[in-house]
Amino acid sequence: MTDTILLREDRGGIATLTMNAPGSLNALSDAMLAALKGAFVDLSQDRDTRVVILKGAGKAFCAGHDLKEMQAGRQAEDRGRAYFADLFARCAEVMQMIPALPQPVIAEAHGIATAAGCQLVASCDLAVAAEGTRFGVNGVNIGLFCSTPMVALSRNVPRKVAFEMLTTGQFIDATRAAEVGLVNRVVPQDALAAETRALAETLAGKLMAAVKIGKRAFYDQIEMTRADAYDHAAAVMVENMMWRDTDEGISAFIEKRKPDWS
Amino acid sequence: MTDTILLREDRGGIATLTMNAPGSLNALSDAMLAALKGAFVDLSQDRDTRVVILKGAGKAFCAGHDLKEMQAGRQAEDRGRAYFADLFARCAEVMQMIPALPQPVIAEAHGIATAAGCQLVASCDLAVAAEGTRFGVNGVNIGLFCSTPMVALSRNVPRKVAFEMLTTGQFIDATRAAEVGLVNRVVPQDALAAETRALAETLAGKLMAAVKIGKRAFYDQIEMTRADAYDHAAAVMVENMMWRDTDEGISAFIEKRKPDWS
Amino acid sequence: MTDTILLREDRGGIATLTMNAPGSLNALSDAMLAALKGAFVDLSQDRDTRVVILKGAGKAFCAGHDLKEMQAGRQAEDRGRAYFADLFARCAEVMQMIPALPQPVIAEAHGIATAAGCQLVASCDLAVAAEGTRFGVNGVNIGLFCSTPMVALSRNVPRKVAFEMLTTGQFIDATRAAEVGLVNRVVPQDALAAETRALAETLAGKLMAAVKIGKRAFYDQIEMTRADAYDHAAAVMVENMMWRDTDEGISAFIEKRKPDWS
Repeated sequence: MTDTILLREDRGGIATLTMNAPGSLNALSDAMLAALKGAFVDLSQDRDTRVVILKGAGKAFCAGHDLKEMQAGRQAEDRGRAYFADLFARCAEVMQMIPALPQPVIAEAHGIATAAGCQLVASCDLAVAAEGTRFGVNGVNIGLFCSTPMVALSRNVPRKVAFEMLTTGQFIDATRAAEVGLVNRVVPQDALAAETRALAETLAGKLMAAVKIGKRAFYDQIEMTRADAYDHAAAVMVENMMWRDTDEGISAFIEKRKPDWS
Repeated sequence: MTDTILLREDRGGIATLTMNAPGSLNALSDAMLAALKGAFVDLSQDRDTRVVILKGAGKAFCAGHDLKEMQAGRQAEDRGRAYFADLFARCAEVMQMIPALPQPVIAEAHGIATAAGCQLVASCDLAVAAEGTRFGVNGVNIGLFCSTPMVALSRNVPRKVAFEMLTTGQFIDATRAAEVGLVNRVVPQDALAAETRALAETLAGKLMAAVKIGKRAFYDQIEMTRADAYDHAAAVMVENMMWRDTDEGISAFIEKRKPDWS
Repeated sequence: MTDTILLREDRGGIATLTMNAPGSLNALSDAMLAALKGAFVDLSQDRDTRVVILKGAGKAFCAGHDLKEMQAGRQAEDRGRAYFADLFARCAEVMQMIPALPQPVIAEAHGIATAAGCQLVASCDLAVAAEGTRFGVNGVNIGLFCSTPMVALSRNVPRKVAFEMLTTGQFIDATRAAEVGLVNRVVPQDALAAETRALAETLAGKLMAAVKIGKRAFYDQIEMTRADAYDHAAAVMVENMMWRDTDEGISAFIEKRKPDWS
């Protein structure tokens, strides 16, 4: 099941994960969440993969939770309470595995990214969107406020923008998403794969250890006071300076040659 | 006094509060602050009102504190210290009642919104502005830095934008206010009331309990670490899922029919 | 040494600091950091200076750390560890002295502002940039992730924008820098000095004590919860109100005359 619901392709140090349940607009079903978790666990120990791309098969990136599966959960004696608690805990865990991964993760968004699908975009380190992609946290339209997607969204975009999306349930398009900070770049639909790949290759060309220590420090320091953040980041810089490859990288720059990072 | 200085009109589950002291550009006098507090206390217990619009009568939304009244406070034996402490505490209380209300509050801004008037816009959950509206935290021009307005403003817009407004005392126009996140939408002056009403009606059409639990969670989680925010939001999602109306909303969506939320 | 590596010119209550090592693109060498620290210590006790402009001589604002000097540090028995720890601590101290200064500090950026040079722009309270100025945190290109610059950058711009700059090492231009909040204004190169001076003069025309108390409160409150921030800012407002000059400023405004702040 996991093999087909989430495809993984590796090429040039870049792993592409494709959510592959187009019939449900790649809904984050129990199986999809398990597959994503499994893939992220693998990546967390994968020293060959330098960058991850996350995309969706079919017409959409991801339309959020699997509503039919959720409704089926109500059959339990507790009317689903335990199942829902477990579901949202698993989902939040998967979302938080993304910033915790050693590799940068790029969302390649197209079609729609709604509710937990929009959260997935917000949770990725970077995002490229095809023109026309629509983003929304529209659970409010069916009486289920997007409270967990809000955690990621409100850490990406200005407060009033997030509040409007959450309470109106209206979509914003890719251009607006770029303006407000939800995605990095908007490209024509037919250039989406190539542009995302180009960005991934740019990152894959860096010294992986530096990207890794930097990504971790990014999320660590962002929740600290400025003074604590500086203490932490300064210690990271010292570690980074002590590496042979960094010594080589700086020397190469001074000597106007390519670094030997082989 | 309260009846006339702050008008309230209720229609279709939407309460419109109109600051009505046009002669002072709706200054936040003691009387106006008391009237706003009274109205917010009422709304906090009002189960029929789904959305609130806050606007100003006359040429301006609100020009901030009532400077003449403040200067009169200096006649006291302590030269006004106790009065000022009480005034700024009352004002901060009123400002913080807005995010604490169960209903979303939309600022309908026109003319000018300066100092504590700009703070009022920043404190609202959403804001619609007429073209040409000018926003400023210009107390610095008269030697009184807008320190309390800064609290709301710096949680709406980027740091350097806030610092510039606070130290130059210069206005930004509505278009710029939308770019930096201080307002959601800019509309022609003659469409202001209709556009604000349309936004309010969009919100009023949602399941009120979901909007209410979501608004509370929004402000609760935004000051937490991401991990704590997820724990909190996940618990909110579970509660939300257990409601009959949410069950109905999701079922209706799956069955492609309107939910019965009557 | 300090006299020549960092020039200071005082005129009309505005101190202009010019980093003056154009041959190294004003690299933040040990000497430059010491000179900046010395200048900031002086300014912290300087009651005549109302605003500070920080600029660079030659082709660039600042290109970050002095890489040759850093590499020389590796000759020590500990391969530079103690030197690097001291260096990054000194650099972080200098950066944090800027928000701690009583005067607003305006970066006047041209050419390039990279790595710790970009951090310097982000650390200033305000920034004006010449058209064509390029900003980057590009240490990743040589294997040294810009972890300390990230602290300042990620408190200026949206999260995904910061992450992209840090991991791609790519430049953004001045227009983009203004869009994302890294600089306040972009002006033609030949207007840079005049426009920066005009902004400085605007600030210098305010009541200095109000700007000073406001700047301190700005950075104090921004890291607090909203409730604590309001308590703090309200206390600041009361102090501000008790000053003779503020009394005069408000009275003058009411009486439609210029305040007598002599």
